[in-house]
Amino acid sequence: MTTNFALTRSFFHLPEGIVYLDGNSLGPLPKGAQARLDRVLEREWGEMLINAWNDAGWMDYSVGIGNRIGRLIGAAEGSIVVGDTLSIKLYQALAAALDLNPKRRVILSDTGNFPSDLYMAEGLIRASNKNLELKVVDPQQVADAIDDSVAVVMLTEVDYRTGRRHAMTALTERAHDAGAITVWDLAHSAGAIPVDLTGAKADFAVGCTYKYLNGGPGAPGFIYVAPDLIDRVRPALCGWLGHESPFAFDLDYRPVTGIERMRVGTPSIIAMAVLDAALEVWDQVEMADVRAKSLALSQRFMDFVDRHCPQISLASPRDPAMRGSQLSFRFPAGYAVVQALIAKGVIGDFRAPDLMRFGITPLFIGEAEIDAACQSLKEVLDREIWRQPQFQQQKFVT
Amino acid sequence: MTTNFALTRSFFHLPEGIVYLDGNSLGPLPKGAQARLDRVLEREWGEMLINAWNDAGWMDYSVGIGNRIGRLIGAAEGSIVVGDTLSIKLYQALAAALDLNPKRRVILSDTGNFPSDLYMAEGLIRASNKNLELKVVDPQQVADAIDDSVAVVMLTEVDYRTGRRHAMTALTERAHDAGAITVWDLAHSAGAIPVDLTGAKADFAVGCTYKYLNGGPGAPGFIYVAPDLIDRVRPALCGWLGHESPFAFDLDYRPVTGIERMRVGTPSIIAMAVLDAALEVWDQVEMADVRAKSLALSQRFMDFVDRHCPQISLASPRDPAMRGSQLSFRFPAGYAVVQALIAKGVIGDFRAPDLMRFGITPLFIGEAEIDAACQSLKEVLDREIWRQPQFQQQKFVT
Repeated sequence: MTTNFALTRSFFHLPEGIVYLDGNSLGPLPKGAQARLDRVLEREWGEMLINAWNDAGWMDYSVGIGNRIGRLIGAAEGSIVVGDTLSIKLYQALAAALDLNPKRRVILSDTGNFPSDLYMAEGLIRASNKNLELKVVDPQQVADAIDDSVAVVMLTEVDYRTGRRHAMTALTERAHDAGAITVWDLAHSAGAIPVDLTGAKADFAVGCTYKYLNGGPGAPGFIYVAPDLIDRVRPALCGWLGHESPFAFDLDYRPVTGIERMRVGTPSIIAMAVLDAALEVWDQVEMADVRAKSLALSQRFMDFVDRHCPQISLASPRDPAMRGSQLSFRFPAGYAVVQALIAKGVIGDFRAPDLMRFGITPLFIGEAEIDAACQSLKEVLDREIWRQPQFQQQKFVT
Repeated sequence: MTTNFALTRSFFHLPEGIVYLDGNSLGPLPKGAQARLDRVLEREWGEMLINAWNDAGWMDYSVGIGNRIGRLIGAAEGSIVVGDTLSIKLYQALAAALDLNPKRRVILSDTGNFPSDLYMAEGLIRASNKNLELKVVDPQQVADAIDDSVAVVMLTEVDYRTGRRHAMTALTERAHDAGAITVWDLAHSAGAIPVDLTGAKADFAVGCTYKYLNGGPGAPGFIYVAPDLIDRVRPALCGWLGHESPFAFDLDYRPVTGIERMRVGTPSIIAMAVLDAALEVWDQVEMADVRAKSLALSQRFMDFVDRHCPQISLASPRDPAMRGSQLSFRFPAGYAVVQALIAKGVIGDFRAPDLMRFGITPLFIGEAEIDAACQSLKEVLDREIWRQPQFQQQKFVT
């Protein structure tokens, strides 16, 4: 390994006495964020005022940060733009993909997609007044469901519930063979696993930056468009910052050449600055090293559970090639167990109906944290209370 | 007056030696922003991690900040939600308005609307695959152009170029009489002039928060939906945070009751927190006082120009009732004059082809600043150089 994980860990503030296994939901605070914000507030906004848009490089964040993310997911320079939210970027990608395949009417997705993606697709279908259909199948059935009715295959690469990972390259190839276009959601991929958008010939991809990329709560989304497609895309959400000449204030929209046409309105510079500071740690990292450590830590966790926690069952695939960077276990009283773990300083999370999720984030988690979490998990699971009838039923949390 | 403008001024950091007349483009730094960010980063994100979404009230910002803005623009509690950008919120409002008036096909707007609003409408029309038409007339022709073909009247209340103000109440009444729905963009209204959305019977309104509200560069947008309409709206951009039960992770979208259905994806909490801190000053302010001071300062500025600057012509309406809170003047060499003013520490801005804009922001601007700006303007305009041929032509900046 060339990545120094003691160094990467030093980039983060982690609370005393906490084992944080929820970096797949909200990454922890990068220590560099505060200094960056001091600069943006005091020196830039405070002193340069409106001139900071040009003089402090605010206009350049959207593409500059996109390139920083691009290195982690196999995207060419200038093929990613950052802004808005994942949901908005998904809408843009899906609308553009449908535009490129106008004779077909099916959007194919799966039940492992994050629901917001499905909701955004529903909204787009309704707004389009065309006879489009959202077809949602089980994750295992996606490959077989790709036929010549499918306009767009819209999938989240790594299932937020189980960590199950789709075979991006194979599914993209299958989609292309069937004449369909792909939209990949990388919410649980970027910074979690090596992704090669170029090698996979992905058409569109979107993602968020507040999970494994540690960009802060609600940090901006991003969108990737394959370089050979971007200038054929006419954005559905066409705001002034995607205009060829935004400060000409023309009455008619003319998209700028390249990825910046996927920009919409004015992005929060404060959010962008924190994200940019958070991404600095990734300049020290090789994704292959992150992946190797993630798999080793995950195996360590699974081995412990196999030996000591017979009460719970693994919901994630055992095959590392089929898995992202989280482990999920099923237990009827999963919600209560996660709460008990949090009380002991081990933070994972719970997804209805019975899934306990633990994110494996090697930048700041090592063997000691995994061992501590495992011990706590065993202690909690060994309590007699879970045998009581009220804990034999799943608790639905809404 | 009951508003203490010495107090409001003390809320802001203003650079030494600068007269800042561009608060209509980017408001200055509120001193409270830094302390709020320290809290959000160190105590909330840093220490509470994922639990801060509930325990630090992050989930409540969208509506809580909406209510704070609502007080300034005559909106009922719970009728505004904050998030995304103005362009995205405009798209939502326009899509919803069109849905409510399905038999008509014309969106009426004017050449004084901010171009991004027109672009977003273009995108929506294209995506809708219906025979919709965007009709753009001169500001003076809007009233006469409202007829029974018009589905939606979409206007920016205060023209970003000239500060010309539409008669919101009268135009809304006229639209309603003709069976049309109104979408008002308050980008240059919120915090600039008293607005009474309830009294005007406005249907939809949107705005940004980085101008007169001083929320920071690219601070979030907001959307208002009249309380009697909101539960009839099915959002076109329907993200998980607008779902009745986001954490049930249902596959189907069911909008929550009330304004929160206009939420989409996860908003930047860091941007929200800065905005919330910026809005604290408004709790000390009566909009009527702000308006009175704005008009007095504007009159002082105009009087000086009338007496001492015959070279330039007022582009803003002289009638205060027709004006927002900025003054614009035409001058062929306007671009160069604005640059010369900036070099003297007087920051206004320029809009092609020949408009010099000066924002009047009473929270931190008083008579001394207006007088200093006027003196500098006269000194610059009196230079011989503007008589040279190259400055007799308008400079287009793109």
